[in-house]
Amino acid sequence: MRVRRLSRPPRFVSWASVGGYEESRGPLGEKLDFVDKTDTFGQKTWELAEGEMGRCALNMALTKAGLSHDRLELLVAGDLQNQCVASSLGAGSFGIPFLGVYGACSTCTESLLILSVMLSEGCATLGAAATTSHNSAAERQFRTPVEYGAQRAPSAQWTATAGGAFILSSDYGIISCERKGSVELSEVAVGKIIDGATADGSNMGGAMAFAAADTILSYFEETGNDPAMFDHIVTGDLGRVGSDILRHILGEKLPKAVSRHTDCGLLLYDSEIQDVHSGASGCGTSASVLAAHFLPALERGDLSDILFLSTGALMSPSSVLQGRNISAVAPLIRLTHRDNEKTEREEPSNE
Amino acid sequence: MRVRRLSRPPRFVSWASVGGYEESRGPLGEKLDFVDKTDTFGQKTWELAEGEMGRCALNMALTKAGLSHDRLELLVAGDLQNQCVASSLGAGSFGIPFLGVYGACSTCTESLLILSVMLSEGCATLGAAATTSHNSAAERQFRTPVEYGAQRAPSAQWTATAGGAFILSSDYGIISCERKGSVELSEVAVGKIIDGATADGSNMGGAMAFAAADTILSYFEETGNDPAMFDHIVTGDLGRVGSDILRHILGEKLPKAVSRHTDCGLLLYDSEIQDVHSGASGCGTSASVLAAHFLPALERGDLSDILFLSTGALMSPSSVLQGRNISAVAPLIRLTHRDNEKTEREEPSNE
Repeated sequence: MRVRRLSRPPRFVSWASVGGYEESRGPLGEKLDFVDKTDTFGQKTWELAEGEMGRCALNMALTKAGLSHDRLELLVAGDLQNQCVASSLGAGSFGIPFLGVYGACSTCTESLLILSVMLSEGCATLGAAATTSHNSAAERQFRTPVEYGAQRAPSAQWTATAGGAFILSSDYGIISCERKGSVELSEVAVGKIIDGATADGSNMGGAMAFAAADTILSYFEETGNDPAMFDHIVTGDLGRVGSDILRHILGEKLPKAVSRHTDCGLLLYDSEIQDVHSGASGCGTSASVLAAHFLPALERGDLSDILFLSTGALMSPSSVLQGRNISAVAPLIRLTHRDNEKTEREEPSNE
Repeated sequence: MRVRRLSRPPRFVSWASVGGYEESRGPLGEKLDFVDKTDTFGQKTWELAEGEMGRCALNMALTKAGLSHDRLELLVAGDLQNQCVASSLGAGSFGIPFLGVYGACSTCTESLLILSVMLSEGCATLGAAATTSHNSAAERQFRTPVEYGAQRAPSAQWTATAGGAFILSSDYGIISCERKGSVELSEVAVGKIIDGATADGSNMGGAMAFAAADTILSYFEETGNDPAMFDHIVTGDLGRVGSDILRHILGEKLPKAVSRHTDCGLLLYDSEIQDVHSGASGCGTSASVLAAHFLPALERGDLSDILFLSTGALMSPSSVLQGRNISAVAPLIRLTHRDNEKTEREEPSNE
């Protein structure tokens, strides 16, 4: 791995989160920018509903920033549907120059990573990333239509009907000066694909834990940073089973990191009252939790520095049927609170 | 769109192409680095065969450059299989930090574009891009298994069983000094998603022609460059139908560009003796033609400057069944011959 401190680290101009019925009932329900309790988002199919979710999220992020879509010079987006059509037919339909990514549930971080590098390199001044997943679209594509009522294993997770959109810029002048703080995407690291040591499609969290551990351990080994520097080390959707495995590995190899770990898959739902088994999954999980929870806290200064890793299980229904293990990947970004009043005096590092 | 001249434009260290039976019979058959006429690449399923193709291609590119895989700090890869498993389980299995992309048949250019920006920004010194497609895997996923013998429309194209891998670096010292010339990836431009104005899954080339036209016209409008500066303006897999549409549009709006246009989908097979209807398609088409034909010619200096656009049809079997038009996207890269003897005196532009 190679951790890269960006030469012109971009900052978040605005963001928005969306969710469906189950998400509205969870601990972050009130914080989601838009909720459709019917899960349909006004569309006739679940697949189109997911595309519309992405459109809604991006549209709201634009509205919050007071920007028209034609100001955006780049959109990096992905989702869980075959051929990523939710993104290309949804948020992609705005006519913004488009890069499609596929990182399974790591898509939120992967798209923010690629976007931030493109902005830092000057390929665009203002760009966006968008990520969605939809429970009903994912269930019938990866498992069985929900109407079949198939029983789920205790280690299985609940694919979130949720999404997030993020607008970033390396031109800090675009960020509203009314805000006290802003959030900088300062470092990126691309994760390796790690064998999840299981072919059990009902235990994605377990399969992804090893990739998350590899990225976290590599990050601290390479940078020499202390885990205590960070408020949180956030993983995407390991859920309860995967989080337990990750914490066990960290406990042996980097004990100081254990208490810093938190997982978006454990924050989106209340497992006491919601029947979500091991927790939330789907790339909309980390996207919506980042937009509804972590970014506002970082902007306010309640959090000052976090490492954010979404975790992706790289498999297809065919590859599982053909007996291949589930592989996983966990890209990493570092998100840091910046005081807007100090911006003038701070020069972006030009390492 | 925004055309970006990279601050530290990377150069190609090495590359390799692979193909199957039909590709071996075509005009470029002799130039492919590796061919398996059984199309199986030693695997039990077509899906695994595609993954193995990507491994072969990357392995050969590494061998040509005398590099071990652990020297690579980044791999950007994609393919046509659901959830891009050919890449994650194939070339991704080398354990190189991995970014998965989905751009349908635009994946070759998209992955080279992202890789080059990552290298230019300093996220890695040495990185690779890999792209594959497999006829038999694609037919049963997108249409029907080939064993069914379904009749194909005249506008349909033949998904290539082919792939390419490319190793690039911004550190020109890595490039063998025995070679007279090298190839620089100097400019990138991300294309917009354009409605293909058809929902006919047997006419992908026609649907993609509009996206190619949009990118080409935007490039020349923004840069003010003259089409005569380029030996070729290469599209990925428009085939005969799509190429005719593109040339018609260019003929009206930028007549000087028409004679420069050529299409990888028309170069891979000999339509006189091969039953490929409108030509080659699949993201392996542009990857293998770039590696087997254009890069060697650029390295030798037989070509000095080309614009290279792969073209991707953004749809899924579900989206077509649900009546959505096929959208398309065409990212662009500029590939330029550089004389190695002059390298020392040339400073990478730092615009």
